[in-house]
Amino acid sequence: KDELADFYKYIDYREEIYVNRLREAVAIKSVSAWPDHRNEVIRMLEWTKDWTEKLGGKVELYENPCKVQQMDDGTTIPLPPIMLGSFGDDPKKKTVCVYGHLDVQPALLTDGWDTEPFELTEIDGKLFGRGSTDDKGPALSWLWMVEAFNELKMDLPVNIKMIYEGMEEYGSEGMFETVNELSKPGKFLANVDFFCISDNYWLGRNKPCLTYGLRGMAYFEVGVECSTKDLHSGVYGGSVHEAMTDLIKLMSTLTETDGTINVAGVMKDVAPVTEKEKESYETIDFDLANYAEEVGVTTIGEKRLRHNTKRDLLMARWRFPTLSLHGIEGAFSDPGAKTVIPRKVMGKFSLRLVPDQDPKQIAACVTKHLNDEFAKLGSPNKMWVKAHHGAKAWLSSTDHPNYTAAASAVEKVYGQKPDMTREGGSIPIATWLEDATQMNVLLLPVGACDDMAHSQNEKFDRKNMVAAIKVLGCYLHEVAKIRG
Amino acid sequence: KDELADFYKYIDYREEIYVNRLREAVAIKSVSAWPDHRNEVIRMLEWTKDWTEKLGGKVELYENPCKVQQMDDGTTIPLPPIMLGSFGDDPKKKTVCVYGHLDVQPALLTDGWDTEPFELTEIDGKLFGRGSTDDKGPALSWLWMVEAFNELKMDLPVNIKMIYEGMEEYGSEGMFETVNELSKPGKFLANVDFFCISDNYWLGRNKPCLTYGLRGMAYFEVGVECSTKDLHSGVYGGSVHEAMTDLIKLMSTLTETDGTINVAGVMKDVAPVTEKEKESYETIDFDLANYAEEVGVTTIGEKRLRHNTKRDLLMARWRFPTLSLHGIEGAFSDPGAKTVIPRKVMGKFSLRLVPDQDPKQIAACVTKHLNDEFAKLGSPNKMWVKAHHGAKAWLSSTDHPNYTAAASAVEKVYGQKPDMTREGGSIPIATWLEDATQMNVLLLPVGACDDMAHSQNEKFDRKNMVAAIKVLGCYLHEVAKIRG
Ligand SMILES: [Zn+2]
Ligand SMILES: [Zn+2]
Ligand SMILES: [Zn+2]
Ligand SMILES: [Zn+2]
Repeated sequence: KDELADFYKYIDYREEIYVNRLREAVAIKSVSAWPDHRNEVIRMLEWTKDWTEKLGGKVELYENPCKVQQMDDGTTIPLPPIMLGSFGDDPKKKTVCVYGHLDVQPALLTDGWDTEPFELTEIDGKLFGRGSTDDKGPALSWLWMVEAFNELKMDLPVNIKMIYEGMEEYGSEGMFETVNELSKPGKFLANVDFFCISDNYWLGRNKPCLTYGLRGMAYFEVGVECSTKDLHSGVYGGSVHEAMTDLIKLMSTLTETDGTINVAGVMKDVAPVTEKEKESYETIDFDLANYAEEVGVTTIGEKRLRHNTKRDLLMARWRFPTLSLHGIEGAFSDPGAKTVIPRKVMGKFSLRLVPDQDPKQIAACVTKHLNDEFAKLGSPNKMWVKAHHGAKAWLSSTDHPNYTAAASAVEKVYGQKPDMTREGGSIPIATWLEDATQMNVLLLPVGACDDMAHSQNEKFDRKNMVAAIKVLGCYLHEVAKIRG
Repeated sequence: KDELADFYKYIDYREEIYVNRLREAVAIKSVSAWPDHRNEVIRMLEWTKDWTEKLGGKVELYENPCKVQQMDDGTTIPLPPIMLGSFGDDPKKKTVCVYGHLDVQPALLTDGWDTEPFELTEIDGKLFGRGSTDDKGPALSWLWMVEAFNELKMDLPVNIKMIYEGMEEYGSEGMFETVNELSKPGKFLANVDFFCISDNYWLGRNKPCLTYGLRGMAYFEVGVECSTKDLHSGVYGGSVHEAMTDLIKLMSTLTETDGTINVAGVMKDVAPVTEKEKESYETIDFDLANYAEEVGVTTIGEKRLRHNTKRDLLMARWRFPTLSLHGIEGAFSDPGAKTVIPRKVMGKFSLRLVPDQDPKQIAACVTKHLNDEFAKLGSPNKMWVKAHHGAKAWLSSTDHPNYTAAASAVEKVYGQKPDMTREGGSIPIATWLEDATQMNVLLLPVGACDDMAHSQNEKFDRKNMVAAIKVLGCYLHEVAKIRG
């Protein structure tokens, strides 16, 4: 008999209680992007602190090192503290640290939600509500898992540390500094053996996965200025070398419809595809038709995805760089017709980076490319390139004990081995934790690909909420078996 | 002795009174673009009606045929009426009809005004205030001119009709229909002999001009759609044929840094430049250095104007078509860095048209060009071209008696012959009046090129305000001499 059988049974038995607690948490409008709701973010942190303490944990609300957030109007508002929680400090046990966030994306019924976003509403086993899956549901699962161990008088198999923030959806201000400070000898993160983050999603709707790679990124602005004021195209058209003409020319040189990146040197350091990697895509549970529907291309025409096979499409998202043109600041962007010659326009674009690309080297290539192309235009305008921020891709090893422990927990709880997946986007905290502590970070998603994090109608499947609590407990159980 | 000597003297004597009346008019915030200020637009029309009646004129507030303005939220607000005024109806006299508008552009101190925009403020002989030069100052000059004739017991040399609207700065809704209706036999505009509009500006700061040509325009939207939702470039980059990539490629094919228009067929009907026309540019008072400063290119580098001679630059603005890229709707346009793959983007651009270009034929060329270029991309995306609105260029004859009368009035009042100029922008009402009545339209600017209509710190020079009243009276005097 599975030694966690009682644990699983207890969780099934308490299902309704977990739903009600999630309802309470979702009702707290902890939107970090809404300055006038900052108190709600703090309330959400305190709500979680109270629960942690009630379950026997120790909690410190750690002051954000950046202290305040600068508003556009020059005023400041306080940044929320970072919750540092811990259960147990037995030096004979391993220590697992979980990262989570308690703030959520903005949400308004008028955005197109079918239900009130801050009222958890169940429809067909789906728990709709802002934060249900990103990241309140997963983050709180750790507490309910601890509670179950407590109630069943089972010893926690490892020491648990929790680092939960309230600004993730608005740039995680202060987290980088906090992680670095707390990783110093003797500090909160110093003795952590393994990190675990449940803040991403499965590749599909049903099959669980572990995520071992993330793309990095390099964000750019290319600006052109032709005059000191916006000009009316009727009165002044023909007078100046228009900034938009130059900018559009420059932006048009960066990439092609098929995704080819034209910037010389960018592809140089992309890690070659091995046969083993090629094979690894074959078994992954990924349905191109479902995916086409998810990205919204089925309804407006045929053959709209950029690749026709599972492998090519996943490789395009996970292990090859991409370049996207995002938009233009300073140009006319409203509906309707305005006849302006904008004086100064800034094109925004970014590359997603993969191993072994270096953001600095990419920035150098992009800058050279744009300068060369601008020289070809023979324009007298002022032009500049600004590299915003860059991050290297992140790649972990699926052979690491942290991953094998999680894989075996997933298999026990869900009855199937997880897919080993990468993701196209970046999760900066994973890199920060790994860089600061040199310890392995596991990404253990517990929600499905259609959970709609950041969108209208975000949801967490009731069955996935229950399984999450189980899998976290089982994962700790497996981690405890790791020797060395 | 000049037969209008007393008239001029009287006007000089009353200068301060005119300034105070303009102050009263500027204080009425008749901003047509501000729906909650619609009553102020109506108040401004009533203020003008009262003055017209006080000076012996007859006035009808003609109901706008479009009646209401549709708001984005589905509600409606009333459109202001159109003021139809008249002084005299002697069948033995010529009838001159003046068009003007009493609404103004939006203005806020925080936009960068140095003085309160709705408090007329005099600095160094400049009367700063929204509407001072566009178009309250010029439009009201007609009344003060009539007043002077009255007070001096001089008979008005012609019948005067006034058609003054309150929505010019917001699209002149209903004016086209009104002009057409009122041009029918027996209606208000039916017996007008000459039209006069003072709603544009001199080419320079000091030398008056008459304007005999305006460019037309053709406005376009080219759209590309790649999916039914915006996508995160990290998670989804590599999945779809991005709409922005296609759109930027398409927009980049339209024009070159030096202004060349790449759309085949567009230059075909441009009227050839005659020797006579070439010569006509030589005598025009136009200073390239001043102009460079006006458009704001001197401060950010050298040789920023597109042409180095007066003639080339004026021809580029007046008699050759230009193509300007205005911006993109649907793409990221805010400050900062957002990693979005926009699902649907619409590029906006327009051409300024010259004789003998036909907007319909231009639309056909542009549409064919974009379809051809899109085919080259091999993109599976949805693409469309929408021709917004088009207007032919307008060209009058400087030999028309309406122009020679005005030229001689200008010479008498300012002591110099006016330059005969064209303009790059369009003034739709000029075309509407001419098309509906087949009578000549004169553009008689009375403000200087640096009056900053539509910008911060709009002003009307005190001396130009005074001269305007004089020149309008003298113009009517000259018109009365026209035989046949
Ligand atoms: Zn999250
Ligand atoms: Zn999120
Ligand atoms: Zn105007
Ligand atoms: Zn205007």
